[in-house]
Amino acid sequence: MSELSELTWREVRAAGDGGIAVLPIGSQEQHAAHLPLGTDTLLAQAVLARALAILADKESADGDEAGDIVTLPALPYGHSPHHLFAAAVSLSAATLTAVLDDILASLVTSGCRRIMVVNGHGGNDEIMRLAVKRFALRPQSEGVTVAACSYWTVTDTPEGTSAERPAVTPGHAGWFETSLMLAAHPGLVRAPVPARTPVEPPPLFDNPPYPGLTTERHGEWARVGGSTDDASRADADTGRLLLDARARGLAKAIAAFDAATRPAHKESHEDH
Amino acid sequence: MSELSELTWREVRAAGDGGIAVLPIGSQEQHAAHLPLGTDTLLAQAVLARALAILADKESADGDEAGDIVTLPALPYGHSPHHLFAAAVSLSAATLTAVLDDILASLVTSGCRRIMVVNGHGGNDEIMRLAVKRFALRPQSEGVTVAACSYWTVTDTPEGTSAERPAVTPGHAGWFETSLMLAAHPGLVRAPVPARTPVEPPPLFDNPPYPGLTTERHGEWARVGGSTDDASRADADTGRLLLDARARGLAKAIAAFDAATRPAHKESHEDH
Amino acid sequence: MSELSELTWREVRAAGDGGIAVLPIGSQEQHAAHLPLGTDTLLAQAVLARALAILADKESADGDEAGDIVTLPALPYGHSPHHLFAAAVSLSAATLTAVLDDILASLVTSGCRRIMVVNGHGGNDEIMRLAVKRFALRPQSEGVTVAACSYWTVTDTPEGTSAERPAVTPGHAGWFETSLMLAAHPGLVRAPVPARTPVEPPPLFDNPPYPGLTTERHGEWARVGGSTDDASRADADTGRLLLDARARGLAKAIAAFDAATRPAHKESHEDH
Amino acid sequence: MSELSELTWREVRAAGDGGIAVLPIGSQEQHAAHLPLGTDTLLAQAVLARALAILADKESADGDEAGDIVTLPALPYGHSPHHLFAAAVSLSAATLTAVLDDILASLVTSGCRRIMVVNGHGGNDEIMRLAVKRFALRPQSEGVTVAACSYWTVTDTPEGTSAERPAVTPGHAGWFETSLMLAAHPGLVRAPVPARTPVEPPPLFDNPPYPGLTTERHGEWARVGGSTDDASRADADTGRLLLDARARGLAKAIAAFDAATRPAHKESHEDH
Amino acid sequence: MSELSELTWREVRAAGDGGIAVLPIGSQEQHAAHLPLGTDTLLAQAVLARALAILADKESADGDEAGDIVTLPALPYGHSPHHLFAAAVSLSAATLTAVLDDILASLVTSGCRRIMVVNGHGGNDEIMRLAVKRFALRPQSEGVTVAACSYWTVTDTPEGTSAERPAVTPGHAGWFETSLMLAAHPGLVRAPVPARTPVEPPPLFDNPPYPGLTTERHGEWARVGGSTDDASRADADTGRLLLDARARGLAKAIAAFDAATRPAHKESHEDH
Amino acid sequence: MSELSELTWREVRAAGDGGIAVLPIGSQEQHAAHLPLGTDTLLAQAVLARALAILADKESADGDEAGDIVTLPALPYGHSPHHLFAAAVSLSAATLTAVLDDILASLVTSGCRRIMVVNGHGGNDEIMRLAVKRFALRPQSEGVTVAACSYWTVTDTPEGTSAERPAVTPGHAGWFETSLMLAAHPGLVRAPVPARTPVEPPPLFDNPPYPGLTTERHGEWARVGGSTDDASRADADTGRLLLDARARGLAKAIAAFDAATRPAHKESHEDH
Repeated sequence: MSELSELTWREVRAAGDGGIAVLPIGSQEQHAAHLPLGTDTLLAQAVLARALAILADKESADGDEAGDIVTLPALPYGHSPHHLFAAAVSLSAATLTAVLDDILASLVTSGCRRIMVVNGHGGNDEIMRLAVKRFALRPQSEGVTVAACSYWTVTDTPEGTSAERPAVTPGHAGWFETSLMLAAHPGLVRAPVPARTPVEPPPLFDNPPYPGLTTERHGEWARVGGSTDDASRADADTGRLLLDARARGLAKAIAAFDAATRPAHKESHEDH
Repeated sequence: MSELSELTWREVRAAGDGGIAVLPIGSQEQHAAHLPLGTDTLLAQAVLARALAILADKESADGDEAGDIVTLPALPYGHSPHHLFAAAVSLSAATLTAVLDDILASLVTSGCRRIMVVNGHGGNDEIMRLAVKRFALRPQSEGVTVAACSYWTVTDTPEGTSAERPAVTPGHAGWFETSLMLAAHPGLVRAPVPARTPVEPPPLFDNPPYPGLTTERHGEWARVGGSTDDASRADADTGRLLLDARARGLAKAIAAFDAATRPAHKESHEDH
Repeated sequence: MSELSELTWREVRAAGDGGIAVLPIGSQEQHAAHLPLGTDTLLAQAVLARALAILADKESADGDEAGDIVTLPALPYGHSPHHLFAAAVSLSAATLTAVLDDILASLVTSGCRRIMVVNGHGGNDEIMRLAVKRFALRPQSEGVTVAACSYWTVTDTPEGTSAERPAVTPGHAGWFETSLMLAAHPGLVRAPVPARTPVEPPPLFDNPPYPGLTTERHGEWARVGGSTDDASRADADTGRLLLDARARGLAKAIAAFDAATRPAHKESHEDH
Repeated sequence: MSELSELTWREVRAAGDGGIAVLPIGSQEQHAAHLPLGTDTLLAQAVLARALAILADKESADGDEAGDIVTLPALPYGHSPHHLFAAAVSLSAATLTAVLDDILASLVTSGCRRIMVVNGHGGNDEIMRLAVKRFALRPQSEGVTVAACSYWTVTDTPEGTSAERPAVTPGHAGWFETSLMLAAHPGLVRAPVPARTPVEPPPLFDNPPYPGLTTERHGEWARVGGSTDDASRADADTGRLLLDARARGLAKAIAAFDAATRPAHKESHEDH
Repeated sequence: MSELSELTWREVRAAGDGGIAVLPIGSQEQHAAHLPLGTDTLLAQAVLARALAILADKESADGDEAGDIVTLPALPYGHSPHHLFAAAVSLSAATLTAVLDDILASLVTSGCRRIMVVNGHGGNDEIMRLAVKRFALRPQSEGVTVAACSYWTVTDTPEGTSAERPAVTPGHAGWFETSLMLAAHPGLVRAPVPARTPVEPPPLFDNPPYPGLTTERHGEWARVGGSTDDASRADADTGRLLLDARARGLAKAIAAFDAATRPAHKESHEDH
Repeated sequence: MSELSELTWREVRAAGDGGIAVLPIGSQEQHAAHLPLGTDTLLAQAVLARALAILADKESADGDEAGDIVTLPALPYGHSPHHLFAAAVSLSAATLTAVLDDILASLVTSGCRRIMVVNGHGGNDEIMRLAVKRFALRPQSEGVTVAACSYWTVTDTPEGTSAERPAVTPGHAGWFETSLMLAAHPGLVRAPVPARTPVEPPPLFDNPPYPGLTTERHGEWARVGGSTDDASRADADTGRLLLDARARGLAKAIAAFDAATRPAHKESHEDH
């Protein structure tokens, strides 16, 4: 496990042969009055760092030598047009698509065959999933497998834990993200976290009129004040539980991706 | 309820004021040995037609005058790069994005304020959801709301029905789509539907190594023969149940979208 | 002769080997107060359907086995920026170009070597002709021939018929298109067709200051009310003559294209 | 009448107010063994220079003060992908479109309201006509009129002249262009002009299977040796007649464009 | 002085009013056998951090309250097509241009009026300078000033120092960059730094045939082994001198930019 | 030495084998009240013509047979968004990039392996240098070398000449360009050249706050009246010295480029 930016090119080439490259992506965008612009990037990095630590522990415990994991520098900018009304540094969908295409293509040119993107921002989700699918289907991608997840979609809840809500969506600048930030970066959460008066009707993007129906109304983010739910009930203990569950989930997802895509000659290596 | 292609421009303008424009989109792509290339387009149109019939019945029964619904001509081509190995007529992601942008922009220029896209092809899903969100956020979209769904994500299962599988994904050219086609277009299903030998390992795109992890491996669609599961157990009766549940779901989604976005002056009209 | 959307992929592959793929394209745009938005698409489809019927009759009469003709689903949207002042669903020139490129490339990838585009909308004409020429010149297009026509440019006037005017241009929403629609889709023509007061000066786009000089003045389409000439003198009998002449012309054009580009091994087949 | 490149910006601004900007465009592409790469550009410039001389003579004879005509530097590069098999400097269709858009937009930003493009290369024709139409329809083009012609489409044949063939197409590197070059730039025609053996079948791009059907077959230009017809019968006297007819035609086209689009305040000036 | 990613949106808005946003950009690309891929990003960040420390010291010493400086997250990826032969994560010129455009536009939308880009990678230089100039000239950029430098182009050499070479170019992975890395990140330099056999002829990109002539030969970077000069003579003491001179230079450049562009109302504030 | 536009394609192919293609590029943009819009194009052409004359003289004197030099038609339009406030015909950066890419690609397709771009307009400089570097790095550019300079960056000042200022920048419409135009095209300089009142503060684009810092402030070109310095002291004698020094410099640069990139088989030819 290593940082690509700290490796020489020969080390990158060696790791690419059988290893997995992991690209964290995030955003810089308004997160209400109490969270910093970098929240999504910081949380993706926090979950990933914990997941890699779990995998490293497991590896030294099991003696199971996994493929090398090389972490790329996080892309700190995402697709946030819906937050420019307050403050954000946003790439257009076309630009973010081009960035992901270029990064994936560079990695393959540099010898990498297995790549995973780990996302921290809801607005990047479709762009990321579309990009990895399209990239793997390219005629030039023979032998390549690419995966992608948003950190909140891969989770692992131990029996008996009730801290977590059933919803799979992290919301925006509300209870979920604030709890996580109180656990991961408490110094960056402005206290006290203000209570949020419910907005009526609740925003369509968060409460679609019918399940499965994506709905976007112009100006809705400004109308509801930039967050999806009340963050004042967030606490650090819950945040740690939520964070750990996602880190365990991501660790399992990485291990499962490794197992499903491990090249044959690596396995034969392990036979010896 | 009317077809845009059969209206004069004054009728389109009149319907756009308070009405809802609905755009069906599909694909032309291989659907194994027994289903035609147009399956996705045909099913999106079939579900939409049944949903509109349900709404029309309800309208005449309740005397509840909904906003006009104008159906655009279906876009018969979608994003199918994964099926070109056999046969498909595929638009690139950039092209399909541009088509959706241009259609949405034209509708708003022509006076429409509420638009819904109804999709029949999995490969269009992210592109469509991204397009409608980005479009509604444009500075020029003041007063506009746009929604999108794939027909299988909006459903309505009556109590006691067990015909439907729990999975939300329709698969490709398998049990689900074949059942629907046997119900909607039995003449286009080549009989007998051949059984499909299970492929080991099952394709990553359909069976990701971990829940929530999108995974695409180059060449996987060709390796598994172009379908996701065994279609030979499909039957028309189940297809009718599945089709009706989606039609009822889409009808409810349209009605809910209408209620959530109905312009004020329409409501005041109803007061009289 | 068959519809691509109703074929399985193996049937498409088989037809592509020696066959001809035909793509109808049209528009959705204002056609004055009496014709529907889909007029251009409907007329391209009407002429093509009649042409294919003529070819089918001839084939069964002559025993001459022509190459298979596979008709793609019509592209119902075209380039209509000049009609957005009233109502239209328009693709930009760049988008329509991309759509045509993607469709042509898909067909060649799926094994097709001979393609013809049949257009129903004047605003698509240059884009279509440019697209087919550029596509056939691609390095990847070895062995490929592509053709294109607007339905009104291929005609066949029998001796003694005087119903047809000398002009090759169909105008817009005037005598020509209205006559055709009265023949092809009388139920969609709003009656009575209003007479049109001549506009002075006549629009530059229809009456260029000098023959051969394309001229476009901003706002001209709105100034002249959205049509080029008086439609009130249109009648269904003339429309049938006009329609038949174009259908015969298109049938002859398809047959001539087939003869000029038939692959050698097909001919040798016929020797037996 | 003046050259834009020799004017100061105040002179350009003054001429733009009521004047006409004329942009010649051409190509650099193979013209068989006897004509230079710049033939199309040189002929467009030759016809335009003669047309402007005719207008200048007429102006001083009639005392009729036309609007100022400002000639832009010729764009010496066009769209010639079909000649790269031998030698050409070709802009892609997208690039040439962008160049024309940028030039037209700059002229309007600099105060010009009436623009004409004069083309010397067949491969530019659709791109140019499409560009001027689309440009004039832009929302920002209020008050703007744009026109376009290829020099061979505007002609004026005096009574009794039989030198000219009936065909409207100039062919490529054949009798027509060679005659014109012998008249306009005899020093650049390599003598003797070689006779050309007829090619069987003749190229589809020049002899479509049916009138009105644009047809392009891959590799056709190389197969037929880069020209459309026999240039050996060309002569300078005929070339002068052909050239003069086109120059008179272009002069009349410019005058007609001026008359049809002259701004009102210019006319009221003429009242005094 | 603060990090944008740690600020809330209200703090970003407040800082943008009169402050300066600074965006560091770098690369991930091969730097021979002894330096890590992230070298350019790390050095841009090191010089910027030292420059900001100098400004902070000066501010507290002088009591001179400069405008707020907000540092954006570094863009860790640049334009490195010339290093893909070994290993790099490279954005195309079009993608990097789009990223810079989007970031600059977001900052202006979020209220910022003064922006500076600080670059660490030679391959980004033209793209960056072009981007900031074009951006400031946009019609929407009224009141905006943008600046850009590569860290080695702004320097400040104290009297009597001879450690620095006269050349303004930092080379690539040679004496200059290695010295800087030995000063800034000694732990990331693989020791011993191998000596480099001179390559004959030296690469054209680093030794153009004539001063002022940019020259690029295909394959040159691979031929010369990925570095421009011998790094084995690099040492940490020289590196510190070089680094300090650039940090002082950048501090002076920022202060000069601030003075030249300080908005009037800030100055009047200071009068009180 | 020859003009590409006057060569047949066989002559272009022959010259491309071992020869050098030279592309002059310029602009059409305001040059204050006394210089014409085409100044930059005219000066690039003037310097290049003199440089080629020097090389031709040297060649006939030395008997040294250099590679053929083929001059392409000048691209008369450049990137001038900063001059549209007065008058200019400007290509966007994306369009100019596309034009250069297409021209370079066409030349290589037509057999050329050595290309040099000679620029006359400051606004083209980064775009040009970036384009040639990126082009040479393309996978398809094996065996290709491309160079680029702006005419004022390659100079050759004889001993004892003091006429020239130390600055390497030509400014805009000031002393330098006016002197050159008085030498090269005196008839196009409007006399008397007006004196220019100094502008306070001087424009940031010409006087950056710190050396090495590119700085652009919105509206600066209009504020300072469109020129960088006082042109009234310009004279023709100095202009001739400046022009000759650049012509000698460009001649030396072309000869050095030729020597550095001459293909091996050409040299072996010379051995005989």
